[in-house]
Amino acid sequence: MKLCILFFFLFSNILFAQLSEKKLDNYKNQADRIIRSALVEQKAYGWLKEVCEIGPRLSGSEKSLKAIRYAEDKMKQLDFDKVWLQPVMVPHWERGEVEEAFVVDGIDKGKQLHIASLGSSVATNEESVTAGVIEVKDFDELKLRSSEVKGKIVLFNRPIDAGLVNTFSGYGGAVNQRGFGAIQAARFGAVAVLIRSVTTKMDDNVPHVGSMYYADSIPKIPSAAIGSLDADFLSDAIRNDISLKVSIKFNCRTLPDIQSYNVIGEITGSEYPKEVIVVGGHYDSWDKGDGAHDDASGCLQSMEVLDLLKRLDIKPRRTIRCVFFINEENGVRGGRAYGTYADTIKEKHIAAIESDRGAFTPRGFYVGADSLKILKIQSWLPVLKKSLIDWVEKGGGGVDISFIKNAEAQIGYVPDAQRYMDVHHSANDTFESVHPREMELGSAAITILAYLLSEEGF
Amino acid sequence: MKLCILFFFLFSNILFAQLSEKKLDNYKNQADRIIRSALVEQKAYGWLKEVCEIGPRLSGSEKSLKAIRYAEDKMKQLDFDKVWLQPVMVPHWERGEVEEAFVVDGIDKGKQLHIASLGSSVATNEESVTAGVIEVKDFDELKLRSSEVKGKIVLFNRPIDAGLVNTFSGYGGAVNQRGFGAIQAARFGAVAVLIRSVTTKMDDNVPHVGSMYYADSIPKIPSAAIGSLDADFLSDAIRNDISLKVSIKFNCRTLPDIQSYNVIGEITGSEYPKEVIVVGGHYDSWDKGDGAHDDASGCLQSMEVLDLLKRLDIKPRRTIRCVFFINEENGVRGGRAYGTYADTIKEKHIAAIESDRGAFTPRGFYVGADSLKILKIQSWLPVLKKSLIDWVEKGGGGVDISFIKNAEAQIGYVPDAQRYMDVHHSANDTFESVHPREMELGSAAITILAYLLSEEGF
Repeated sequence: MKLCILFFFLFSNILFAQLSEKKLDNYKNQADRIIRSALVEQKAYGWLKEVCEIGPRLSGSEKSLKAIRYAEDKMKQLDFDKVWLQPVMVPHWERGEVEEAFVVDGIDKGKQLHIASLGSSVATNEESVTAGVIEVKDFDELKLRSSEVKGKIVLFNRPIDAGLVNTFSGYGGAVNQRGFGAIQAARFGAVAVLIRSVTTKMDDNVPHVGSMYYADSIPKIPSAAIGSLDADFLSDAIRNDISLKVSIKFNCRTLPDIQSYNVIGEITGSEYPKEVIVVGGHYDSWDKGDGAHDDASGCLQSMEVLDLLKRLDIKPRRTIRCVFFINEENGVRGGRAYGTYADTIKEKHIAAIESDRGAFTPRGFYVGADSLKILKIQSWLPVLKKSLIDWVEKGGGGVDISFIKNAEAQIGYVPDAQRYMDVHHSANDTFESVHPREMELGSAAITILAYLLSEEGF
Repeated sequence: MKLCILFFFLFSNILFAQLSEKKLDNYKNQADRIIRSALVEQKAYGWLKEVCEIGPRLSGSEKSLKAIRYAEDKMKQLDFDKVWLQPVMVPHWERGEVEEAFVVDGIDKGKQLHIASLGSSVATNEESVTAGVIEVKDFDELKLRSSEVKGKIVLFNRPIDAGLVNTFSGYGGAVNQRGFGAIQAARFGAVAVLIRSVTTKMDDNVPHVGSMYYADSIPKIPSAAIGSLDADFLSDAIRNDISLKVSIKFNCRTLPDIQSYNVIGEITGSEYPKEVIVVGGHYDSWDKGDGAHDDASGCLQSMEVLDLLKRLDIKPRRTIRCVFFINEENGVRGGRAYGTYADTIKEKHIAAIESDRGAFTPRGFYVGADSLKILKIQSWLPVLKKSLIDWVEKGGGGVDISFIKNAEAQIGYVPDAQRYMDVHHSANDTFESVHPREMELGSAAITILAYLLSEEGF
């Protein structure tokens, strides 16, 4: 009998959260309409082409401001109920005109290496940095060999662990070299660092850039990403000739902070206008490629959430607001600014959904919320599955929405991750690398979830 | 109390099928090893490169025989317990050296159209077929306009319905034009048919070929696929100029049936050698592109199932046999031949798993079996999920394994389908269109399922 009560308890919880058959059918019908419209009209994909034609959107750059004006204009054309820019001061780092590295001596003398300075890096002092190279796999090895580091260029050469299914885990296991390599190497007297590109694509030579950090008390040394094949080459070359020297030269610079903006649009809720569901991505990108997957696509999917509801004449009960966060890549100032805004206004943030994992085929949603809310969203799986969302699990939502502290649920859209790190932060993250159906199914999946949240609340 | 009994009944069924925690942990560990080895060593992907370098593998062609020898040699090198060729007589249709189409008159006079004769089509008689064009969307429209068809080339121009999530459903809704268009059009006196390429990629002009059929009592007219953009062009052109003529010429031919082979290898079961799990794909392809996704990848994944177990020193209790079926595309003679063999030998086919939906990221398995067997496989999801298998559902296994009538379960491996029809049966189905991690996760998923079937049986 105890077991029986346990069963009842389990089932009543599940039943409690479940939709009536009539509601479920209605939501399924709406989901079908949303999916069909996304796949056939491919509007977000069309906007992506236009945004990518503007060029990369590094925070503070001319092109980022042009893209911001494009987004504001487009949201107005789409006739959202409100469209506004939220001012945000952002860091302003620029890549220089000169960026080169080559082998100075030995049998490979003159060989050019594919490098790209990392975001926030200082330039090489004077003409260039010319020095011998020491290769290490991690900070432990660096420490063990600290006596050899002085005056050298440190090559951090640990690839992503290809054996992991989740490429984000692989990335997480390798990216500390890029973020903190310069600090660690400078502590032992290194003159510069080269960081193996943090990528799953090991058979090309495209540098993958990204952010890096300095510590005030430690000398700031130049820091650059190097293509995977050149990292392999250099590893072999210094094994064969321990005295081999490499020369590095680049003239990137950090300028004073500059005015930028989050771009925000909303459809005001018909019943609960002060209850808000945020959908968003980050609009800034690195300056290689177009930042198509990372993360123009997430922004444009979010904009399409609102447009899909409008073009299908679906009027949400709660407010659905898309936010194009600025400066996720090197400062997260846009996310912080929206978080501050959310703290102060008289609105209730029901949920925030972030799309910042590429425009690939849908798989699931991570939900940061209490268990009953997760259970409730899981009960919507029969509707979500139509857009290829196979699971809803407890997990993190995303960097930008993490600042919306009053949100009852922070939700991360999770597309398939196998190809993302191939292009991430590199010149290969272009419009051409995005598949229209994969991107549009993402739009549809996020729209369906936002719509269900709007209608059902928690 | 009745409800309580019902709950007990439901749960006991589920519990009955579930693995002990110890077993589950062991299988999860083995799954981790299998996945890591597949992703890091990428052996199937390496073999795919070699097979694609041989070229397309149309049944009966020289290159198909070369690829068969490659596979037999490779299985022997991999030291499978048994390797053999099963002789199969296959149809022998060849594309000709000449294949062209152009506009004869009007403002677009001389414009070349991208066409490719369909498999089994007859050649154009004499020099060429020159005629006016009538466009229809389906057989109903053809019938309604039957009086206009005589002496014309019929353009069947119904695209895949882009609004469907499942591209196989979209394909299924459009492919009857290709299969039966020539029969239907010839009934009303058409002189040839052009079939809009059955593809989700509507912004290129690559013809997508495939099989087509004739009826003995109806004249055999030439039948070719036309690129999507040229189908759109022709549709516009004849709307503007109803008298516009097109000239078509190609000299494909059907030769006598020719000797070919299924390639078969196995690891003999350590405890139940006469209980067999088949894993397979089809080795023949169309003659455009390399047939990388369709279906060299399925075969090489199947070969890697055996190799993964061998290289990880996992000895299956039951026999696991990979079969490279020949002639799936235009005859299914290989599938039939293996089915006949399976009917007559003194073995029990526990299950057959087919991979013939492209080398994309894993999603699930369709299982054709009774409900309890499906439930049992579903209970293995905690293990299968490691390789990104999110679901196991009732469904069809595949064409080739459908002839293994005594198999207790016919299982179809289901990768993501969004990109498959872009390349399917076209010159774009090349090695370069396959992503190594996506393909290798497929190898791993199939290996894990085959291994569980081998250890647990039904």
